[in-house]
Amino acid sequence: MKTATIVGAGLVGSLWAVYLSKAGYQVKIFERRPDIRKAEISAGKSINLALSTRGWKALDAVGVGDEIRKIAIPMTGRIMHDLEGNLTYQPYGKEGQAIYSVSRGGINAKMMDIAEEYGNAKIFYNEKCVDVDLENGIVYLENTENGEKSAVQSDLVFAADGAFSAVRYNAMQKLDRFNYSQNYIEDGYREILLPANTDGSYKLDKNALHIWPRGRFMLIALANEDGSFTCTLFMPFEGENSFETLTSKEAVDRFFKKTFPDFYDMMPDIADAWEDHPLSSLAIVRCYPWTHGKTALMGDAAHATVPFYGQGMNCGFEDCTVMWELMQQHGDDWDQIFREYQRLRKPDGDGVQDLSLHNYHVMRDYVADPKFLLQKKIEAHFSEKYPDKWMPLYSQVTFSHIRYSEAFKKGQEQDAIMKKVMAQFDDIESRWNSEAVENAILAELK
Amino acid sequence: MKTATIVGAGLVGSLWAVYLSKAGYQVKIFERRPDIRKAEISAGKSINLALSTRGWKALDAVGVGDEIRKIAIPMTGRIMHDLEGNLTYQPYGKEGQAIYSVSRGGINAKMMDIAEEYGNAKIFYNEKCVDVDLENGIVYLENTENGEKSAVQSDLVFAADGAFSAVRYNAMQKLDRFNYSQNYIEDGYREILLPANTDGSYKLDKNALHIWPRGRFMLIALANEDGSFTCTLFMPFEGENSFETLTSKEAVDRFFKKTFPDFYDMMPDIADAWEDHPLSSLAIVRCYPWTHGKTALMGDAAHATVPFYGQGMNCGFEDCTVMWELMQQHGDDWDQIFREYQRLRKPDGDGVQDLSLHNYHVMRDYVADPKFLLQKKIEAHFSEKYPDKWMPLYSQVTFSHIRYSEAFKKGQEQDAIMKKVMAQFDDIESRWNSEAVENAILAELK
Repeated sequence: MKTATIVGAGLVGSLWAVYLSKAGYQVKIFERRPDIRKAEISAGKSINLALSTRGWKALDAVGVGDEIRKIAIPMTGRIMHDLEGNLTYQPYGKEGQAIYSVSRGGINAKMMDIAEEYGNAKIFYNEKCVDVDLENGIVYLENTENGEKSAVQSDLVFAADGAFSAVRYNAMQKLDRFNYSQNYIEDGYREILLPANTDGSYKLDKNALHIWPRGRFMLIALANEDGSFTCTLFMPFEGENSFETLTSKEAVDRFFKKTFPDFYDMMPDIADAWEDHPLSSLAIVRCYPWTHGKTALMGDAAHATVPFYGQGMNCGFEDCTVMWELMQQHGDDWDQIFREYQRLRKPDGDGVQDLSLHNYHVMRDYVADPKFLLQKKIEAHFSEKYPDKWMPLYSQVTFSHIRYSEAFKKGQEQDAIMKKVMAQFDDIESRWNSEAVENAILAELK
Repeated sequence: MKTATIVGAGLVGSLWAVYLSKAGYQVKIFERRPDIRKAEISAGKSINLALSTRGWKALDAVGVGDEIRKIAIPMTGRIMHDLEGNLTYQPYGKEGQAIYSVSRGGINAKMMDIAEEYGNAKIFYNEKCVDVDLENGIVYLENTENGEKSAVQSDLVFAADGAFSAVRYNAMQKLDRFNYSQNYIEDGYREILLPANTDGSYKLDKNALHIWPRGRFMLIALANEDGSFTCTLFMPFEGENSFETLTSKEAVDRFFKKTFPDFYDMMPDIADAWEDHPLSSLAIVRCYPWTHGKTALMGDAAHATVPFYGQGMNCGFEDCTVMWELMQQHGDDWDQIFREYQRLRKPDGDGVQDLSLHNYHVMRDYVADPKFLLQKKIEAHFSEKYPDKWMPLYSQVTFSHIRYSEAFKKGQEQDAIMKKVMAQFDDIESRWNSEAVENAILAELK
C-alpha cells in the first residue's frame, strides 16, 4: 500500500488526510502538541475563523462539509459600531450569501475526528519534527514526553505544520536557493471573551461580524455556539493608542470606556479579563520553492498570512483542491504534480497575502469612511444589474473560486475605475444609482 | 576583567576583537571551521575582495591597516573587454584613488593573526554554535571533531558568523517579531583561476578590475599577488546562456571561445579547469532587530549582500567603526549602544544591499553602453569642476564615508538629473563638456 506522512494535525493536515486516503494512501499524522480533544483547549492565541466558499468546496468534495456545518454560525454581513454606539450594516454579498464563524478549537477537534474517521489516518501526538530528509521522504521525530527519537519513511511527506513549520525551518530553509521571508506587521492582537447573557442568549446579533473600526486600530467580534463572542483587539504594539500604553487595569478600563463605549457597557469588567489571553503578533511568511523531492508544504507552512480577509484556512483548504485536481491529471507522477502545484499555486499564496494586507486597511479604516461605503454601495448596485460585468472584490475572494492572484489584480482595476467615475460627479451622493453613473462605469469597462 | 565572545573568526569578527581588546575586554572567538592558516585553503567559494575607503578607516583606526596593505593590490579603474577584445578604461575615481584587491583566503589568515596579536584574542576552532541565550550572553557550542558540548558565558556576545549566521538562525530567528528574509538572485557564480605566465608575470594589467560585460552575464578578474587572477563568471542558473547549458567540456570550450575570445586566448584549457571550483549561489539577507539582550549581529550576519559593489567587507568593517563611536558616546551602557547601533545602522545595511543590486545591473550591462559611459564622463568632468556640488555615486560609496542609505538616495537623484540634462541636447556626444551642459546641470541642482 502507498504511504504518506503528514506533519501537523491542524486543519489542513486533517483534511488532506481524507483526500490522500481517497487516493489509496495509508496516512500517518505527526502532531507536536497533545490531543486537544483530551486536554483543555489552551488559552487561545486564536482568532475565530470564517469559513467561506473555497473552504466549503474542499470539505464537500470529500463529503465532510456537513460535519462542519453543525458547528458553524452564518454571518451575512458586517455591523460597524461607531463611537456613539450607532450601528451600520453592510452585507457581505447577495441575498443568501454568508461566511461562517467557527471556533478554532472546535473546528480543529472536529477535523481530527474527520481525519481518523473519513481518512483512516493514525494521529501520533507529542511528536516533534526535528529534521526531514526531503528527497527520501524520511521524517525524524522526537517525542516531547519521553524524548524517544524515531524516523518514519514514506512515499510522500506533506508539511501542514503551520506558520512556524518545523519542516520548513529544519529542512527547507537549509536548501540552497530557498527564498524565505517572515515579516511581522506593526500590530499585535489580544483576544477577549464576551460572555453570553445570564440566560445564555447573545449580547449582539450573532449573524454578523461586528467591527469597531477606529482608524489605526479596531476591535472585532464573532459569535460562538454557546452565546459568547470571541473578540479580538488589533492594535499597534508601540506608540499612541497601543498595547504598550495598556499595562494597568485603570488604563484598560479608561480606554474601553472612551473608545468602545457600547462594548464597555456589555463588559464593564473588561479590565479584569484583559490578561486572560496573551498579547500575540502577526506575520506574513513567504517562501519558494514549496516542494523538494518527496516533500511538499501546504497551508500556512507555505503561505501564512494575517487574518484580515478570513482566508487563511480557506486558502489552505483550497491547496487540497488544487493538489487533488493535479492528482487527477497526472496520476502517480508526483514529480510532475509537485512541480505544477508550486508553479500554479505560489502566485495565489502571494495573492491571498496581498489581499489580507489590503483588507487590514479596509477593516480598520475605510469601513468607517462614508466615501468607501458609498463606493461599495454603487459597486453592489452595478454588480446586481450587470453580474457578468462586475463582481465586487469581496465576493471574488469570498464567494467564488477565482484565483486569489487574479482577484487581487481585478480588485485594483475596479477600484481605479470607481475612483475615476465617482470623481466625475459632484453630486454622487444623490445620483449614486443613476443611469449616468452606470453609463460612466460601462464606458470605463470598454 | 570584562569579557566578550565573538562567534566567527572571519574578517569582521577578527577586526572587532581588536577594538574590544582596546576597550578592555578579554575576547574569545569561536570558529566553526578549522584554522585555515594550518589547513589547505579550501577550494574557493570566494570572490576576491576589494578594500576601499570605509574598510581602510576601520583598519587604520586600530593601527592594523599597514599589515593588510602588504598583501593588497591597487586597482585604479575598470577595464572593459568587448567581443573583439577591444579594451575601454574607466577610472574609479580621481588621480590617486584606488580600490585594493585582496584574496579572501589571504586576508582572512592575516586578520586572524591580527586578532591574536593586536586583540589578544584566543581563537577556538571547530566550534559550532548550536544555540545562544541572547539575554544572558551564553553561547552553546559543539566541537565538530570530538562532539564535546560546552557553554560560554560572557558580558557581551557578537555574532560575526556570516550570511548563514548560526546565532541568527538558532536564536534570533526564533524571537517573536524578528523580521527576516533571504532572497537569492537568479544568477550564480563560478570561480576560475587564470594562472600567471610561465615567468610569473601577469597576463593582464594587474592594477585594474577587468570586466567582460555581456548584458545578462559577465566575467570579472582581480589580480592576486602571485601573478594569477581570480576570475568569476556571474550568470543565470537557468535559460539561454546559463550554467545549466554549460555541463560538458565541449559546451564550455565553445562558450568561452565565442563569448570571451581574448580571455580564451589566455586560457585555452578553460574547459579542463571549469569544475575546479563549485557553482555557487548569491543571496541578500535582511533582518531586524540586529540586537537582543547582550547579543548583537555584525557584518554579513546582519546584512549579507551580493558582491557587485565590492562593499560587503567594507560595510562589515564600518559596522566596527559605528559601534566603536557609540562606545565613545555611551561608555559601558550597552543597552543604549545596541539600541543606537541598530537604529542608526539598519538603513545603511539596507542601503548597501540596494546599491549592490543596482551595481549588478551597471556592471553586467550598462558598463558596455556608450550612453552610460558618456554620462559617467560628464559627471566626472562636472564633479572635478564643482567638487562640492557633485560627487559621483561610485565615489560616494567607495571613496567617502557618506552613509550608504544617503549615497543610494543621492545617486538616484543625480541619475535623474543627468538623464534629464542629457535629453536636452541632441548633440550631447560633442558638447558633453560644454558650458551649456554645465549650466543645465547647475540649474537642476538649484
